Amino acid sequence: MTLTPEQQAEIEQARAKENRTLRVTAPGMEKHLYTAHPVLDHGFVRVIDYMGDDSAICQAARVSYGKGTKSVQNDEGLIRYLMRHWHSTPFEMCEIKLHVKLPVFVARQWIRHRTANVNEYSARYSILDREFYIPAPEQLAAQSTVNNQGRGAPLTAEESARVLEILKTDAARCYDHYEEMISDDGKQGLARELARMNLPMNIYTQWYWKVDLHNLFHFLRLRADLHAQYEIRVYAEEISRIVADWVPHAHKAFEDYRMGAVTLSAQAMDCLRRMLKGEEVNQENSGMSAREWREFQDVIG
Amino acid sequence: MTLTPEQQAEIEQARAKENRTLRVTAPGMEKHLYTAHPVLDHGFVRVIDYMGDDSAICQAARVSYGKGTKSVQNDEGLIRYLMRHWHSTPFEMCEIKLHVKLPVFVARQWIRHRTANVNEYSARYSILDREFYIPAPEQLAAQSTVNNQGRGAPLTAEESARVLEILKTDAARCYDHYEEMISDDGKQGLARELARMNLPMNIYTQWYWKVDLHNLFHFLRLRADLHAQYEIRVYAEEISRIVADWVPHAHKAFEDYRMGAVTLSAQAMDCLRRMLKGEEVNQENSGMSAREWREFQDVIG
Amino acid sequence: MTLTPEQQAEIEQARAKENRTLRVTAPGMEKHLYTAHPVLDHGFVRVIDYMGDDSAICQAARVSYGKGTKSVQNDEGLIRYLMRHWHSTPFEMCEIKLHVKLPVFVARQWIRHRTANVNEYSARYSILDREFYIPAPEQLAAQSTVNNQGRGAPLTAEESARVLEILKTDAARCYDHYEEMISDDGKQGLARELARMNLPMNIYTQWYWKVDLHNLFHFLRLRADLHAQYEIRVYAEEISRIVADWVPHAHKAFEDYRMGAVTLSAQAMDCLRRMLKGEEVNQENSGMSAREWREFQDVIG
Amino acid sequence: MTLTPEQQAEIEQARAKENRTLRVTAPGMEKHLYTAHPVLDHGFVRVIDYMGDDSAICQAARVSYGKGTKSVQNDEGLIRYLMRHWHSTPFEMCEIKLHVKLPVFVARQWIRHRTANVNEYSARYSILDREFYIPAPEQLAAQSTVNNQGRGAPLTAEESARVLEILKTDAARCYDHYEEMISDDGKQGLARELARMNLPMNIYTQWYWKVDLHNLFHFLRLRADLHAQYEIRVYAEEISRIVADWVPHAHKAFEDYRMGAVTLSAQAMDCLRRMLKGEEVNQENSGMSAREWREFQDVIG
Repeated sequence: MTLTPEQQAEIEQARAKENRTLRVTAPGMEKHLYTAHPVLDHGFVRVIDYMGDDSAICQAARVSYGKGTKSVQNDEGLIRYLMRHWHSTPFEMCEIKLHVKLPVFVARQWIRHRTANVNEYSARYSILDREFYIPAPEQLAAQSTVNNQGRGAPLTAEESARVLEILKTDAARCYDHYEEMISDDGKQGLARELARMNLPMNIYTQWYWKVDLHNLFHFLRLRADLHAQYEIRVYAEEISRIVADWVPHAHKAFEDYRMGAVTLSAQAMDCLRRMLKGEEVNQENSGMSAREWREFQDVIG
Repeated sequence: MTLTPEQQAEIEQARAKENRTLRVTAPGMEKHLYTAHPVLDHGFVRVIDYMGDDSAICQAARVSYGKGTKSVQNDEGLIRYLMRHWHSTPFEMCEIKLHVKLPVFVARQWIRHRTANVNEYSARYSILDREFYIPAPEQLAAQSTVNNQGRGAPLTAEESARVLEILKTDAARCYDHYEEMISDDGKQGLARELARMNLPMNIYTQWYWKVDLHNLFHFLRLRADLHAQYEIRVYAEEISRIVADWVPHAHKAFEDYRMGAVTLSAQAMDCLRRMLKGEEVNQENSGMSAREWREFQDVIG
Repeated sequence: MTLTPEQQAEIEQARAKENRTLRVTAPGMEKHLYTAHPVLDHGFVRVIDYMGDDSAICQAARVSYGKGTKSVQNDEGLIRYLMRHWHSTPFEMCEIKLHVKLPVFVARQWIRHRTANVNEYSARYSILDREFYIPAPEQLAAQSTVNNQGRGAPLTAEESARVLEILKTDAARCYDHYEEMISDDGKQGLARELARMNLPMNIYTQWYWKVDLHNLFHFLRLRADLHAQYEIRVYAEEISRIVADWVPHAHKAFEDYRMGAVTLSAQAMDCLRRMLKGEEVNQENSGMSAREWREFQDVIG
Repeated sequence: MTLTPEQQAEIEQARAKENRTLRVTAPGMEKHLYTAHPVLDHGFVRVIDYMGDDSAICQAARVSYGKGTKSVQNDEGLIRYLMRHWHSTPFEMCEIKLHVKLPVFVARQWIRHRTANVNEYSARYSILDREFYIPAPEQLAAQSTVNNQGRGAPLTAEESARVLEILKTDAARCYDHYEEMISDDGKQGLARELARMNLPMNIYTQWYWKVDLHNLFHFLRLRADLHAQYEIRVYAEEISRIVADWVPHAHKAFEDYRMGAVTLSAQAMDCLRRMLKGEEVNQENSGMSAREWREFQDVIG
């Protein structure tokens, strides 16, 4: 990622100005504010603002559950209880606002998470920068043979080089033509809203993205997962590290009861109970299909 | 509204603790933080937290519209432009969290606004307090004869007194029985989730309510409107005053382009244009129904 | 539930009129259309309309996953795969519209599911009927001693009788007063929007409720669960039976992978794997709290 | 648009099969079912399913407003009343499911409407077709000088030809390279999820899109508007024609009270009232900025 000196100055200026507030603050989050965390070759994640911390989750829960909640449990125990039992509304009481720079094909996956607020850079108004995602060679891989939508074995050095050459050359040529089409130097120049259609989907865009903690956890569960495409997963992982500093108890509970958790079907639970009693269970007497049985074996490993 | 000394102490304690933050702060809002603003006889509105200010709206808009936006317009002009042209996403970048105490029949209207986060006091876990909304005598009125859903002429003093007597007595008796049913003094005591069904809908409940500024404006437009029921309107009006201190430019634009604005149909605009040219327009040649024509007359007054 | 002869005639008339359509129809659902399925003492659930069936879920999935999906799997296998791997969007492609009559305190829980469309009977416009939920004696129970929000042991016959007497008498008196307040017989009559506040929360209301299948399954998972309050659970169970006739494959997958499924934390999975290898695991060496360990024991039976 | 013979056969097969149903049907919509309406050079809109008609809107409204609603107004009058007074929930009781084929840069605007259900063709699983949007020459225009985000004067024939040449050549070359990268003929072949990043944003994608009528009207108001980009507007216009056949009363009300309507600010209403009384009003004494005054003049034309 290359921040312009101007952008870097803006960030430093924002970080230099400290305000006084009666609001709850999260010290672990203050240190991240405004700083651009690099992701991929030109992307980043920046925290612009946040609302609440671990204690705000508990405070909201205690409105619901009344006085009883206050005495019985400390904050961490309460948060773990809420996460374990899918009481999601208290987690909605925290909010985060991020500035993200990301390739368009990643943005198209990301936006499918509907419960969030978004302000994206408009290529109707403004001219996109000449910045394209070019994968690191070790990220280039063949179509997976087991997972219909993922990638499998890495490409050979030779094939890899050929792919990178194509990606770079096509991006450069398309951008040259984009510039040429919109240029009004000695001619009219094509409207930006039209010219942008010539740009490939590895061009970078950027947006402000605001979301509550419950929906952010949902995003992280799907996008920090190993089945997610690498190029969105690295964003999810970066955000996950930031969240760990913001709401450490909630993040730990999320790791234990969501990311690291496993959902077992009625049939799988039945098999497990039988196995724990010493019964010999195999696919034939499991009530599962071959595929489910394989997935089950992977999980109880 | 009667805050217990304990609650009052909590508020003062929260207000006494000042934190340092790198986040944007809104000085006009800091003064409201935690303080309970009374509404109706036992209700209140309290700001628990907020995110953003007028400048945050502009900052988000400038991500979308790029460099051009920066130089051309000052913050107020930009905010007014965004509001006037229904560019709603930058307003979603501000967020507010309120603690509200309100009668159940008001809560039932309020919750119809779906794009918000809510944590309500649970009457399955906890015991509701003996607090009921009893209208001020001047609020008692007959069914409106012009508006099928509203109230019209005030009740006579005598009828008013009779109504208040009923409301007070029934509320007290129902609550006595609620207490009696759940009491486990010398008996089992009915479960709270069942006993609550005996309580009338003027009992107070409370919740944390978190919403973005765009959706809050939508709420205010509908609920601070004269057609809204008085008992929810007073909450909307109180919140509107708080918002004016929080984001003064956005609030002014909202007043001008939403609250004080009028939407005129294709037919009404056609009539207006003809009238401005000096033509005599009446219901017959207006293309409007009698009812629409009456509404139109009221508006151009 | 008592339908008026007029309502019954309406239902029969609607059922008598058969239309021709090119749309997908679900024969198992056609038989439910319009018929009021009784729930509680005066409530009901009626299917007003539906969109899609099992095949519509697959059709939508195949748009996403392209040609490959077509050949490999039959409809049932595909639906089970989608449910197991949390591919929720194809289930959103089915929609159902219900007419529900239910007590207000149940409606207050129900409405917390925000992703749905609702038209509720308005007590500002119209007069509520004299219909209250009075529990069957066997449903009266004491506050649970293990679950802070549920009910436990049934009440004794004597205490039960006393409770029923209170519920009936208070409901009747409050409704008498409601009628008296709004009556304009020889007086002005209080506006309905005010008078309704005197009614207890076991009065019945009604609404049209429209929701997609994915969000309906989420509702059913929470509300048909044993921890849900009995009075909303019976609605969820009735709806679940209807859904089983509408989209049998999707409903079966839901039963196996959601209702009957169990989510185990990272710690619980670790313990399980150790137990399957023959290791002796107890709370002390489990990494779980006493409460979590107890919940784990319940689950592995 | 070019449908393959296979797709055309599927459509004809679907249209040939008539089912019997007790559900409400909209004859005007039945004739559109499944048929692909061409939009742009390769795109289309197809109705896959629908729920409800004009009468369903009234039926839902009558649940809310009770018996009074039944006698007073006929269906059309009621629908117009609901639209005029922003009673939006009854319109949410109708639903439509469309199959849309559209260029990626249009899809990126479209998806910003969050309250809808979407299943998009996955370029991780499947290979995109070689189909690109190439504008008709008369659609090529320069950046607007008055509207920062739109297009203005048409390009000269010469400049236009040069732009079309670029768009066609770059699309073809990028697609050739896409095919070459994923090909496993004598090599490994790059994973599809990576190769797709080389494709320009005028490539076509497709999706199933399901939305309720209220949110569809909101979409149409913004996207059938003259300020919307031409390439999404033609989709909105095509859908609008279909909706006119589906719910003619609701569509007419939408045209009168939304599409053809104008919202005037508090200041503008004040000026209008003064002008109707014969006062001379100009920008100086209007309370409006120069820009607002110009917009006002355009509107009262």
